[in-house]
Amino acid sequence: MTIEVLDRGFVKLLDHMGDDFSAVKAARISHGRDLIDEERDRKLIEYLLRSGHESPFEHIVFTFHIKCPIFVARQWMRHRIASYNELSGRYTELAEEFYLPDLYKRYGERLNENDLQKASKLIEESYKKSHEAYKCLIDMKIPKELARVVLPFATYTQFIWSVNARSLMNFLSLRADSHSQWEMQQFALAVAQVFKSICPWTYESFIRYRYEGDLLKGVNP
Amino acid sequence: MTIEVLDRGFVKLLDHMGDDFSAVKAARISHGRDLIDEERDRKLIEYLLRSGHESPFEHIVFTFHIKCPIFVARQWMRHRIASYNELSGRYTELAEEFYLPDLYKRYGERLNENDLQKASKLIEESYKKSHEAYKCLIDMKIPKELARVVLPFATYTQFIWSVNARSLMNFLSLRADSHSQWEMQQFALAVAQVFKSICPWTYESFIRYRYEGDLLKGVNP
Amino acid sequence: MTIEVLDRGFVKLLDHMGDDFSAVKAARISHGRDLIDEERDRKLIEYLLRSGHESPFEHIVFTFHIKCPIFVARQWMRHRIASYNELSGRYTELAEEFYLPDLYKRYGERLNENDLQKASKLIEESYKKSHEAYKCLIDMKIPKELARVVLPFATYTQFIWSVNARSLMNFLSLRADSHSQWEMQQFALAVAQVFKSICPWTYESFIRYRYEGDLLKGVNP
Amino acid sequence: MTIEVLDRGFVKLLDHMGDDFSAVKAARISHGRDLIDEERDRKLIEYLLRSGHESPFEHIVFTFHIKCPIFVARQWMRHRIASYNELSGRYTELAEEFYLPDLYKRYGERLNENDLQKASKLIEESYKKSHEAYKCLIDMKIPKELARVVLPFATYTQFIWSVNARSLMNFLSLRADSHSQWEMQQFALAVAQVFKSICPWTYESFIRYRYEGDLLKGVNP
Repeated sequence: MTIEVLDRGFVKLLDHMGDDFSAVKAARISHGRDLIDEERDRKLIEYLLRSGHESPFEHIVFTFHIKCPIFVARQWMRHRIASYNELSGRYTELAEEFYLPDLYKRYGERLNENDLQKASKLIEESYKKSHEAYKCLIDMKIPKELARVVLPFATYTQFIWSVNARSLMNFLSLRADSHSQWEMQQFALAVAQVFKSICPWTYESFIRYRYEGDLLKGVNP
Repeated sequence: MTIEVLDRGFVKLLDHMGDDFSAVKAARISHGRDLIDEERDRKLIEYLLRSGHESPFEHIVFTFHIKCPIFVARQWMRHRIASYNELSGRYTELAEEFYLPDLYKRYGERLNENDLQKASKLIEESYKKSHEAYKCLIDMKIPKELARVVLPFATYTQFIWSVNARSLMNFLSLRADSHSQWEMQQFALAVAQVFKSICPWTYESFIRYRYEGDLLKGVNP
Repeated sequence: MTIEVLDRGFVKLLDHMGDDFSAVKAARISHGRDLIDEERDRKLIEYLLRSGHESPFEHIVFTFHIKCPIFVARQWMRHRIASYNELSGRYTELAEEFYLPDLYKRYGERLNENDLQKASKLIEESYKKSHEAYKCLIDMKIPKELARVVLPFATYTQFIWSVNARSLMNFLSLRADSHSQWEMQQFALAVAQVFKSICPWTYESFIRYRYEGDLLKGVNP
Repeated sequence: MTIEVLDRGFVKLLDHMGDDFSAVKAARISHGRDLIDEERDRKLIEYLLRSGHESPFEHIVFTFHIKCPIFVARQWMRHRIASYNELSGRYTELAEEFYLPDLYKRYGERLNENDLQKASKLIEESYKKSHEAYKCLIDMKIPKELARVVLPFATYTQFIWSVNARSLMNFLSLRADSHSQWEMQQFALAVAQVFKSICPWTYESFIRYRYEGDLLKGVNP
């Protein structure tokens, strides 16, 4: 399951452990009871999230492959209850891949045609020059880890992200929200879509009872 | 996969995500390369553990169902990088299940026959009396959460434990070790056995390069 | 600052780092501005907690010395974002100190005089017998770590607890709440009192905007 | 206590809680004994670190103000057992402050005079052009959070970092090491200097028994 995000990024589910029932099973052990029936399981998930009992959701775990601009990755990795392995710009020559914002779509109403065109060109040329400097430094035998200092925040990076459902829900509360940067929001919405497909009941109750953001509200799960 | 431990306990693997290859894949993303061949994968795992690069092993996750005495559970839950859901003695009446140590086996050489018999009987009777008091309090409508105050540390409990391979290896370093309490060791050895069966290469390199305990040393993986 | 809790327990503040201003300073760095004036600082704290920006409160840290019954300590130590060092019953002979609940005060309305007296006596005698068995096992040279298996959950333990203000607030949300066990509540209320005295503004805004429990509501900070 | 690092960075100790004795006190509670004398305290610290008992060191906590290039901050923030509050480029216009590597000092032996001069000029001009593009975008009313996409990895950032001594020691093992990027090393060495001045005994035993890096070896504490 791969969802394309922005001009060159993606959110790809690589693996996962458990689903709605994993949380149910973990919660039931607290009360020494076994699985009963679907209706009760669903109600239990609802009860757990409504009452703030989030620990049973830690037994559901996802591994994603993410490709995003570095300024997005920096916000992402502030979420500490998760595991990350990122492409290293110390050992690998970074590809000429930069996020080029669609300014028309985003600021078309606020800026005039001329300015939008000028700004887009300015960004694109700035990337080009930075990358030329990077290549030139590498040709001069400056180590990759140092040569990259000239590259822009918009450079795409990739990482493996493992996260449990509890921490993922916290990520959605903060990042699938209009206070988050627009580019970050797009990735959070893609993560939400994957989460919803694997854990539909947990997703539904999460949105209803624990979600502190706004973008996912009112969206029918 | 269930391993019986002590007189009434067990370590049961409920679910897991990933194996040796998950660590390999996560590590390779750091260097922008794909999977190559089995020999290289094995060498990569060896290299990662030898050099202390433990983060790729966080993408391998296990969920266990554990049954153990409470004094063992207390040591277990000091490991904070993991998820726990435990049987609650607040809402559930605790069964008359106590760990009865095999004193002959453990102290047969140090204590005389008579003392061993006396000590065993003493422990068994103490459990019996404590449990009688517990039942009596419950019959008197004292809430379960309070009635349990008289129950002994040897009372069996159960919990769901999710843990990634990096944290699990740290657990083994500390608990599968002769400085750990003997009963705790037995559970750690069972966890090691499960880990070894799912991630044989990681286990082998872990024992060789990162393991700080002693009990698993020299044991052929 | 020491607050006595239950019959033999306490919450004692040993050390702390920072106060309301530490959170203000940490938050202001995010916006590249310096401290301004008291009124604005107070409003900033209010804003941070109202909007769910809890990270600046991680720079305020407390170290407590806690003495509580083991069944309380077990609930306490489930809070993983904190540091613990506990008295070890493996190496130390545990004192004859058990929590004796004041049943009259707690169940005086629900149970009759006779039952209350009977239950109290039952608990007290059960403790006494368990402790006699413990002493006897130790006299027989059974190691302390094993002899303790007969001791009751009510046994007092002690530990050092270091926790940042964000994690402490989460602790209060869950434990200073009527769904928590009564004995746990008493300790949480003592922790709240210490927190309020060191960080009055943070406490006030926490109660107003983030606190999910009930016991501290309506209490004038 | 402020230590200047690189051309414009620094490591500044803002606050701290505890010192060598805090670890001693926390460790002694495990054994139910009080402080004894200086010689024994020192030996206890040595014993704890030699045996891998690192938890008592979590009760020592530091708060630093750090200023470093973003590519260094990215490595730093991968250390998850710590608290961070960073200057936000979303709301603040980033200053024209970039890390300009001293190529002569670092590569003087490997590269010829001519190339070094050329590379330095290339980097400097690339920064200048990127910053011009940034300013230009801001003048065109492109939001700061988006305009910054053109800025280089070398841009200086600032953050507040709170970390306990255990996590700090792990940071030093990995970052005060010749496998770490040279710029990161300089910051790690500054952190080591602060740590050594506050906790001289812990530092000494850490280097002897737990430190897995190389740069701090053989340096007289």
